[in-house]
Amino acid sequence: MSDKKYVYDFAEGGARMKSLLGGKGANLAEMTFIGIPVPQGFIITTEACVHYSQTGEYPVGLGDEIEAHLANLESVTGKKLSDPSNPLLLSVRSGSVFSMPGMMDTILNLGLNDVTVEGLAASTGNPRFAYDSYRRFINMFGDVVMGIDPQLFEDALTQKKEEVGAALDTDLTADDLKDITARYKAILQQEAGATFPSDPREQLDLSVRAVFKSWDNQRAKVYRRLNDIPDHLGTAVNIQMMVFGNKGETSGTGVAFTRNPSDGNNEFYGEWLLNAQGEDVVAGVRHPRPLVELGEVMPEIYGELNTIRDKLEDHYRDMQDVEFTIEDGRLYMLQTRAGKRTAAAALQIAVDMVDSGMITKEEALSRIEPDALDQLLHPTLDPSVQMEPLTSGLNASPGAATGKVVFTADDASARGAKGEKVILVRWETNPDDLHGLVEAQGVITSHGGMTSHAAVVARGMGRPCIAGAADMKIDVVAKEITVDGVVIREDDWITMDGSTGRVYLGQVPLAPPQISGNFNTVLRWADEIRKLGVRANADNPEDARRAREFGAEGIGLCRTEHMFMQQERLPHVRDMIMADSTQERELHLAELLPFQRQDFDGLFRAMEGLPVTIRLLDPPLHEFLPDIVTVSVELERMKCTGADGGQIAAQEELVAKVKELHEMNPMLGTRGCRLGIQWPEIYAMQVRAIMEAACDVLADTGKTPCVEIMIPLVGFGTELKTMRELTEATADAVLAERRMEVPYKVGTMIELPRAAVTADEIAEYADFFSFGTNDLTQTTLGFSRDDAEGKFLTHYLKNDVLKDNPFQKLDQEGVGQLVAMAAEKSRGVNPEIKLGICGEHGGEPSSIAFCHRVGLTYVSCSPFRVPVARLAAAQAALNLSGGPSVNA
Amino acid sequence: MSDKKYVYDFAEGGARMKSLLGGKGANLAEMTFIGIPVPQGFIITTEACVHYSQTGEYPVGLGDEIEAHLANLESVTGKKLSDPSNPLLLSVRSGSVFSMPGMMDTILNLGLNDVTVEGLAASTGNPRFAYDSYRRFINMFGDVVMGIDPQLFEDALTQKKEEVGAALDTDLTADDLKDITARYKAILQQEAGATFPSDPREQLDLSVRAVFKSWDNQRAKVYRRLNDIPDHLGTAVNIQMMVFGNKGETSGTGVAFTRNPSDGNNEFYGEWLLNAQGEDVVAGVRHPRPLVELGEVMPEIYGELNTIRDKLEDHYRDMQDVEFTIEDGRLYMLQTRAGKRTAAAALQIAVDMVDSGMITKEEALSRIEPDALDQLLHPTLDPSVQMEPLTSGLNASPGAATGKVVFTADDASARGAKGEKVILVRWETNPDDLHGLVEAQGVITSHGGMTSHAAVVARGMGRPCIAGAADMKIDVVAKEITVDGVVIREDDWITMDGSTGRVYLGQVPLAPPQISGNFNTVLRWADEIRKLGVRANADNPEDARRAREFGAEGIGLCRTEHMFMQQERLPHVRDMIMADSTQERELHLAELLPFQRQDFDGLFRAMEGLPVTIRLLDPPLHEFLPDIVTVSVELERMKCTGADGGQIAAQEELVAKVKELHEMNPMLGTRGCRLGIQWPEIYAMQVRAIMEAACDVLADTGKTPCVEIMIPLVGFGTELKTMRELTEATADAVLAERRMEVPYKVGTMIELPRAAVTADEIAEYADFFSFGTNDLTQTTLGFSRDDAEGKFLTHYLKNDVLKDNPFQKLDQEGVGQLVAMAAEKSRGVNPEIKLGICGEHGGEPSSIAFCHRVGLTYVSCSPFRVPVARLAAAQAALNLSGGPSVNA
Repeated sequence: MSDKKYVYDFAEGGARMKSLLGGKGANLAEMTFIGIPVPQGFIITTEACVHYSQTGEYPVGLGDEIEAHLANLESVTGKKLSDPSNPLLLSVRSGSVFSMPGMMDTILNLGLNDVTVEGLAASTGNPRFAYDSYRRFINMFGDVVMGIDPQLFEDALTQKKEEVGAALDTDLTADDLKDITARYKAILQQEAGATFPSDPREQLDLSVRAVFKSWDNQRAKVYRRLNDIPDHLGTAVNIQMMVFGNKGETSGTGVAFTRNPSDGNNEFYGEWLLNAQGEDVVAGVRHPRPLVELGEVMPEIYGELNTIRDKLEDHYRDMQDVEFTIEDGRLYMLQTRAGKRTAAAALQIAVDMVDSGMITKEEALSRIEPDALDQLLHPTLDPSVQMEPLTSGLNASPGAATGKVVFTADDASARGAKGEKVILVRWETNPDDLHGLVEAQGVITSHGGMTSHAAVVARGMGRPCIAGAADMKIDVVAKEITVDGVVIREDDWITMDGSTGRVYLGQVPLAPPQISGNFNTVLRWADEIRKLGVRANADNPEDARRAREFGAEGIGLCRTEHMFMQQERLPHVRDMIMADSTQERELHLAELLPFQRQDFDGLFRAMEGLPVTIRLLDPPLHEFLPDIVTVSVELERMKCTGADGGQIAAQEELVAKVKELHEMNPMLGTRGCRLGIQWPEIYAMQVRAIMEAACDVLADTGKTPCVEIMIPLVGFGTELKTMRELTEATADAVLAERRMEVPYKVGTMIELPRAAVTADEIAEYADFFSFGTNDLTQTTLGFSRDDAEGKFLTHYLKNDVLKDNPFQKLDQEGVGQLVAMAAEKSRGVNPEIKLGICGEHGGEPSSIAFCHRVGLTYVSCSPFRVPVARLAAAQAALNLSGGPSVNA
Repeated sequence: MSDKKYVYDFAEGGARMKSLLGGKGANLAEMTFIGIPVPQGFIITTEACVHYSQTGEYPVGLGDEIEAHLANLESVTGKKLSDPSNPLLLSVRSGSVFSMPGMMDTILNLGLNDVTVEGLAASTGNPRFAYDSYRRFINMFGDVVMGIDPQLFEDALTQKKEEVGAALDTDLTADDLKDITARYKAILQQEAGATFPSDPREQLDLSVRAVFKSWDNQRAKVYRRLNDIPDHLGTAVNIQMMVFGNKGETSGTGVAFTRNPSDGNNEFYGEWLLNAQGEDVVAGVRHPRPLVELGEVMPEIYGELNTIRDKLEDHYRDMQDVEFTIEDGRLYMLQTRAGKRTAAAALQIAVDMVDSGMITKEEALSRIEPDALDQLLHPTLDPSVQMEPLTSGLNASPGAATGKVVFTADDASARGAKGEKVILVRWETNPDDLHGLVEAQGVITSHGGMTSHAAVVARGMGRPCIAGAADMKIDVVAKEITVDGVVIREDDWITMDGSTGRVYLGQVPLAPPQISGNFNTVLRWADEIRKLGVRANADNPEDARRAREFGAEGIGLCRTEHMFMQQERLPHVRDMIMADSTQERELHLAELLPFQRQDFDGLFRAMEGLPVTIRLLDPPLHEFLPDIVTVSVELERMKCTGADGGQIAAQEELVAKVKELHEMNPMLGTRGCRLGIQWPEIYAMQVRAIMEAACDVLADTGKTPCVEIMIPLVGFGTELKTMRELTEATADAVLAERRMEVPYKVGTMIELPRAAVTADEIAEYADFFSFGTNDLTQTTLGFSRDDAEGKFLTHYLKNDVLKDNPFQKLDQEGVGQLVAMAAEKSRGVNPEIKLGICGEHGGEPSSIAFCHRVGLTYVSCSPFRVPVARLAAAQAALNLSGGPSVNA
């Protein structure tokens, strides 16, 4: 009764119909359109899947449409489903709008049964091939449609091999395989209580439903959450004529990238296997051969593939990741899509394609995932340390890491989430291991290649990966790895270098990353386009220098409390806190002054006239004293063990002071400007140190520092007014003493909801605002970060109460609404006001896009995130969503 | 150069010019207009004071205007300033827009010097009077203008009295007084290093400036902050011809109320002194005589005064507080203003005036300060306890109180602020003692009358006061009171009854207050007018019953955690928390279920079908366990003293659980719906208990309870959605089991800024919102109440960083903005949504006015505040500001 069309032939679609046909189907249609050979077929739309997800039923008309398109496919291929002599066999594959590699289900060789398998054997003259296809089909069908543990099929196969003394699968005869199909069907019967359906139309119907259902399986949901893919999109189903790479010595299968996905070099790069089906390459079960060897074995096919490589790049104007199958000497392309690549490769490809005029700078920028740049900034092994590697494997994802060995994804996930550094070591990984990969420092597999699951996923996450480290003999039960007689046990430290594929015993020192020319080229393009300034959060000259190397245009947040925490200063800080009078406190502050002046001196020199925003003391004073439980227990111990009276009295005084300053909710206590208002002498000392340092640097270098003094935790205009007066009085006194002119600005953090909603009132006293979105998130959401992460917030994320961790991605609907309101209100009274953000969100792409939209002046983030921020700011200016790239 | 007029003759002004002329001046002008005799004079405007406050100088033209009006006054009175034979003498008084009794300065007898005093003596034939006036003038001038400690003048006077053997001031002769003027001038010279200015024009100029300055003195600032009077208003200065009540036996002075200010009875009520000046009455130095005795001494004057009483009430249509002076048998009115009154009097006067048709119900309601009703709800002495009073005094302000004796305002302030119950005992009080009165439970003075400073201030604050308890001999240095040989020392407990004037030794039990018929009459008028509903916060049947007696229309907040805290339940709660599994937890919850059901059963019965809003468990679970310091110290002690292994192991388990649940910032931790989402079984038990109780009550009484289930601390729509589903599933299951129908609503607290700004999203799942403005204030302002009050918030209030305590008065600009936003957004998606407030602000008048303006459905407050809320809601509907009344 519906007018909707739910099924499209390849000839009816195209790349622009991705949201309806899924990525794979749209590209199969597109390849058909530009004359590239693909096995013919048709696509069931994502809309049909969405309907099925919601109702558990096909939409009206879908069954008929499938029947009609199937008839057409039979006519095009000249084969018929269920034909006992020359049966049409089908592949049924998921195909979502955004790439979700390995997350959903695929069924191959559909159409085989005890009758048609004989027809296939007869028509190909290859009974072994026919029965091998049949047993693979039952295996997949049992796994995907009937939910049977695939290990049972693996075990049956292994047992048969032992029974007949076969070393490899290929040593099994047709009769062996026929026997295996019988055993597989028995497993089906026993485990699922259902007979294997011999009717190919029933097989097709059940398979389509299984693919629909796989959209909602747990691992697919996790993947979507991690990759910001909406849950409501659904998957398309691609139904294609089977082609066989396992028909013998003139058949094969492979995967290839049109450029090198590791370094971006403009070379044809891939792997293939003779006489194999596609999953043999991807699953890493057999060791694939480099693509160049295809040129030696089948030079004509290799030539054709090379021509297709050029045609695809010209057409798509991007590096492609393709799958192909050779059946009896005939080449079919099974898939093309934009290829995943390392950050280094993304930069190289972008620069090359812009140089050759294939794409514009803007297009190039839009294709680079900002977070991927982080990979390039990851540490490498310290080059000054000479170490012999224990063993090596494939350099599957770059970067170095060190950690304790764990053997299961569950362990990696649990311990990694607690902050432990662990390296996951596996025979191979599969999509169920994803949660372990997320939390591990790196992953090593003894099997699989560059396109194995572990390698693809690790590259996507910027995590180091070594694949195919075949010398590592892994005993998962004993939790041991043996390499040439050396035994590595669980919890032993190892170090890995994903860029070289080498594995080392113990903890090898890591060195900071090196940045290539491409990196700077691309970021210069970004700088031309972005509207947002990019500053760094830095508390010391070293961080400031690193930030400038990464392109920071100033310091957006210098936290002065870090200076108070240093070993040589803490005693003075504690004396200052314990002081009984203002006078006594001022004495101790005077001792701190030279330290603070020296800190600021270094910062101003490092920044050479760029803005330096210095936040005056923020944390509650008890943070500088020992913890209340510790001091109370110690006092009890002293009394109990009969310590001398003087010691006990001193401890009692300490306990009293700690109790006096103790707070129920320090986040909402006496901190920020509440300190400066009650004890103005503290802020006065800091302002004096800042201005004296500024004068010293100007006198010494001739360059005027750009001083911005920031008052924290303001909620009321009167607070900022009072603190501004104190700041100006102190600063002007220093300048008068020195007889110098150093301009300075006074501003505030906006980190309380009240400050946001009354920003117009506060802006009257501010030259600048810096949104402290860490604390603003805590107060707006009522989430104490210390008490949320690992506790209720973790529960919320696991149970989909929240989609994202609001401390990582700005909560745009809640916190963001307050930021936007404050920006608008403050500009209403003070159009010249500078607006920045200095929470961790300042380095996160979707949050940066938000900052661009509400018109902030700059973002400030940790030095290592500065490149990410520069690129994300450019993408924001290009009006990209900051969500996942659609061309994946 | 200014066109502004800064000085007005009385004949030029009127009552409507109060903001320019101040209350006193405007009413003097008004009395002049309606033909009541006042000493002629002129008024310097508040604008002139504001100019002086800001610049320290007279505005241009003021000096000339004063000169012109002075010339006019000289012509009207036929006397001249500085005239050696018949000098004009002046009074110079402050007069602010809102009454600030005793806060600012007054100078009398201005114009006297060594020459004019002789003229005054000659023209009156009364040298004693002339020198008495002169010494009073020097005393006041020295105190007010030159800042000299008035005790020095008192000491000199006392010394002279001893020298000449005078018992009373009136025993001093003219020569004695002349000698005293010389001694006073010497004090001036010695203390201020300045000669007493003999030129009356210089005296006038300095006095005007002193009155201007007195606007900014510390006690005036404190008074304004306590009474919500803006700092920018300034005071007017009233300059009047002096009239003398101390000219002999045909002179006198007094104060009167047109009705009884204690009980509101329609009787002329006041006190007077023969041969005295006004401050003798107010300061309580001499014991004044009841007004009725004036009728015996001066029947004609008394008759004239009675006529004026009627004229003033007819004209002002309100009870008036007047000051008068009789000079040589001639009556002058010095002041009229709306009289301060007790709450009981306010009600009586309102009811009488409405009954007689003098005013409307709306006018009557508008004149009653809502907070004053609280007085009527204060305890009295338990009538069942028979006690002999120790002594008694005047019943100056009603209500009973018990506390420890303190002797200084500083002690009362410091100890009272800490929550100690103290009663301040003084010879008399003055405006400098205000901070002590604020914090004391009550005040007793051994001197002074019903209109003494202590009495007026205590009535204004609703604090009990006994004045003139003359039998109490107070030794401030020894800190002792002696009454007929009984000695009361500092820190001894006493009990006072301000309604009877009786003082008791020790702690006498207090009884709850009784409410008069007027109370209910006025509140019925309020109920007719108000738009806001009024509910109460009540956690048990007793509070619920009391709330209904006070007129509550439902329960707006029942906090279920109070039920968890009870002695017999806490062990089950602790077992539930310590449970290792859901199953074990459910077992312990099942033991709590009957208790909870019984709680709700009682509430539903008490409320008889009125709405009962029950909040599910809110506080973090560690609040039910012992404190982390306590358990840690105890463990150390056990180890140290060698307790047995089993005990230590049990303590270690407890410490581990306490540590696991310990939070850095519990306010922002695992509480509210975060509990319900992680451990749904807890909320499920509570919902089951609620619905089972509702069914029981319906079955038993036939009345259907009105059930509203409230989910706390929601910040995200998904949270409420999840908890609503849980609530509905549980509630519907109970109703199905019982085969009954009890409608129930599900709503949420709005107590997080995020909830407010995303109220549209949350409202989709809510039948009602209740603004939890206590927590919303904590999160919006970043103020932990535990850590703010007594710490930085106290500092802020003292130093004018904040005007009001935001936990007492809603921060309308900040928190209020979020409430208004949430109200608007939620009604946008759900026009039927009920909106209430259940923070403490629900019982505070200015906050209630705000709730009315933003269109909330109801306010909910503590049972005792319900009457206040009913009246405040009516005033809000009458569009009164909720600020101080202007007719004071």
